[in-house]
Amino acid sequence: MVSKLDNRKADFEAAFTALLNSKRESDQDVSDAVKAILADVRARGDAAVIDYTSRFDRLDLTPETMRVSAAEIAAARAEVKDDVRAALQEAAERIETFHKRHLPEDDSFTDAQGVTVGARWNAVDAAGIYVPGGKAVYPSSVLMNAIPAKAAGVERIVMVVPAPDGYLNPLVLVAAELAGVTEIYKIGGAQAVGALAYGTDTIAPVDVITGPGNAYVAAAKREVFGTVGIDMIAGPSEILVVADNKNDPRWIAMDLLSQAEHDEVAQSILITDDELFAKMVEDAVEDHLATLPRAVIARTSWDEHGAIIIVSDLAEAAPLVNRLAPEHLELAVDNPRELAKDMKHAGSIFLGRYTPEAIGDYVAGPNHVLPTARNARFTSGLSALNFMKRNTLIECSAESLARIGPAAVTLADEEGLQAHGRSISIRLNRGD
Amino acid sequence: MVSKLDNRKADFEAAFTALLNSKRESDQDVSDAVKAILADVRARGDAAVIDYTSRFDRLDLTPETMRVSAAEIAAARAEVKDDVRAALQEAAERIETFHKRHLPEDDSFTDAQGVTVGARWNAVDAAGIYVPGGKAVYPSSVLMNAIPAKAAGVERIVMVVPAPDGYLNPLVLVAAELAGVTEIYKIGGAQAVGALAYGTDTIAPVDVITGPGNAYVAAAKREVFGTVGIDMIAGPSEILVVADNKNDPRWIAMDLLSQAEHDEVAQSILITDDELFAKMVEDAVEDHLATLPRAVIARTSWDEHGAIIIVSDLAEAAPLVNRLAPEHLELAVDNPRELAKDMKHAGSIFLGRYTPEAIGDYVAGPNHVLPTARNARFTSGLSALNFMKRNTLIECSAESLARIGPAAVTLADEEGLQAHGRSISIRLNRGD
Repeated sequence: MVSKLDNRKADFEAAFTALLNSKRESDQDVSDAVKAILADVRARGDAAVIDYTSRFDRLDLTPETMRVSAAEIAAARAEVKDDVRAALQEAAERIETFHKRHLPEDDSFTDAQGVTVGARWNAVDAAGIYVPGGKAVYPSSVLMNAIPAKAAGVERIVMVVPAPDGYLNPLVLVAAELAGVTEIYKIGGAQAVGALAYGTDTIAPVDVITGPGNAYVAAAKREVFGTVGIDMIAGPSEILVVADNKNDPRWIAMDLLSQAEHDEVAQSILITDDELFAKMVEDAVEDHLATLPRAVIARTSWDEHGAIIIVSDLAEAAPLVNRLAPEHLELAVDNPRELAKDMKHAGSIFLGRYTPEAIGDYVAGPNHVLPTARNARFTSGLSALNFMKRNTLIECSAESLARIGPAAVTLADEEGLQAHGRSISIRLNRGD
Repeated sequence: MVSKLDNRKADFEAAFTALLNSKRESDQDVSDAVKAILADVRARGDAAVIDYTSRFDRLDLTPETMRVSAAEIAAARAEVKDDVRAALQEAAERIETFHKRHLPEDDSFTDAQGVTVGARWNAVDAAGIYVPGGKAVYPSSVLMNAIPAKAAGVERIVMVVPAPDGYLNPLVLVAAELAGVTEIYKIGGAQAVGALAYGTDTIAPVDVITGPGNAYVAAAKREVFGTVGIDMIAGPSEILVVADNKNDPRWIAMDLLSQAEHDEVAQSILITDDELFAKMVEDAVEDHLATLPRAVIARTSWDEHGAIIIVSDLAEAAPLVNRLAPEHLELAVDNPRELAKDMKHAGSIFLGRYTPEAIGDYVAGPNHVLPTARNARFTSGLSALNFMKRNTLIECSAESLARIGPAAVTLADEEGLQAHGRSISIRLNRGD
């Protein structure tokens, strides 16, 4: 049964805090197992990766068959229907357009003291994209991970995707080709993360690893962070819908279910100012569940983690939104931009009655890899920035060093770092 | 004895690879100890923090004395000499100017299909700054961590700094005040990281933790990553100087020593195209060591981790620089910008003969918190971006949803996520 909260009631703060702190992820600590796998991949390279793939994916590989061949990609291409390929293409173009708009700009300026300082952005040399395999088929995730890397200018984009029992979905391969992936390997789990981070004889190491995965993949990414960059530690999906009573309750119910169907531990929350409307949405959820293929998963998520929050006025929603910091925030009201002004913490915001969250999952353009588990308080969805880094640049002349150098010498001496100070003063006074 | 490599010799690649892979950090695995401390702080809050501070810093605190008082800050202010305060002020202003130049810009655009997409940046609510205490006195690090947070617009900037045996350096407090730190606590180690990440009765939790620390602090930051954002896992300092024979060898020697004096495991490398010049630098290092207060540390670093690399032509330096991806890169040549063009991987680049690295440690403006251990391949120095995050925004009308919706429905159906598809189609066809 979905939770009900009401901000006019005395117990609201306690109930809201409980909702905020409710755990949806398992506490399963796989870090020791993952450390062992990573150490083994680091030590034995290909041989270790092949062993774990045989054990976990029931697939026997060799260094030669580990990589998906051009023939396999061509076969996949032949299997994908034209309309599906066209939809992927449309999505890819829109995602590329959006991500290319937000490339950071270089800067250089000379200040009043004559010091020239600046910043210069470069892409990483190689990106690794983790894509889940098996039951889950998410070509959209391939696009959402690889296209930002391509937009950043990354030359080598390496995808790993497990092929349990040898099965690889053709759509995933076609999406990879469309998105500009340059190498694909049929491996997954912590062993794939280790291969990307440390490299093997067959797989050259990458600089950044992005993409979703299970608890082992998440733990492995945390472990290799520092050897490579990572995007984030992804948790179960979330949606928070803020809706007034002028919405069709069936639309809002379907939006809530579109997250709930992902996963039993996904979370869908509705904030509304109308109790009757809330009841209508709840009823519509039941109606939809009767015909949804993934009804069992969606019902578990909705009953165990769903919530309906009644507020006396939608203006009261902002502080609740900021505390929840949801991955997806839908504002189904007449003036959503006004309402969004005070809502700082959310991964992606869907404005108005005609912007269901699912449009952002596929074709709108912004990334669907977004911070979960309240991480929107401090981090952003995936973008080209995840695949780039900045050098700063400093250039002094003899004159400008003479102007700003003395303060640096003073501070270096206070910190007890005399060679620091002397490396400046020796240039200010040739006789030093 | 400093290592010598020569790219005209047959064993160069092997020697360079060995240099690249040489370990300078201890393999000490403190993660179990750190996990226990973090769990205890999470469970017992202030009481745990107080216990660990008593044990590790020999300082008995109460929830009331944990926070540095206004009176303590005023006392510190009175102790700092005017010229030192002026130097700090000059540094703070230059750092602020640089960091404010690079605030990201919001964006919104409506495309040909009528879909409005955009991105909006916000600061995090609260930042935690870790500052080492005890022997090390680094007011410059206080400025370099806090000012980017302030430039980003962070309202609450919380500094933690251990006070072993009760000692707190006044300069660190004065720097904190100058930089806009809003709260200071006399705690350090993994317990301070835990207090910042999870919060206690006395210390409200923060959203991002930055700043350098020992192995415990580094392990704690890795562990709380995901509960909060972190900047990076910092390792020992590094400098790579590329210099021709027109430099004063004493200047270059002092630059190499300015990193070596930080730490026995710091690393200073010279790349030059002149063997005789290299010898003169080596001799100058010995001369300087005779008078440097931190000569013992600097000599250990130089002898054990230093290297001189001879190349036949400085144009051959770029691929070596990119493989080393140094924290600091000094280009002491006539045309450093030309040379820098192909050097993609470096934290900060110091251009020309009058730009010693130390000028960037204090007053140039760019941040001195920079990626070490080859992390410049994939990450950047600290900036306002570390304290900000982006929401993306999507707004469709009935018409624009009708244009881009069908492709999304096709992809959702292929992925087996029918509620996703229906949340779009229900809006396209009121009769759905």
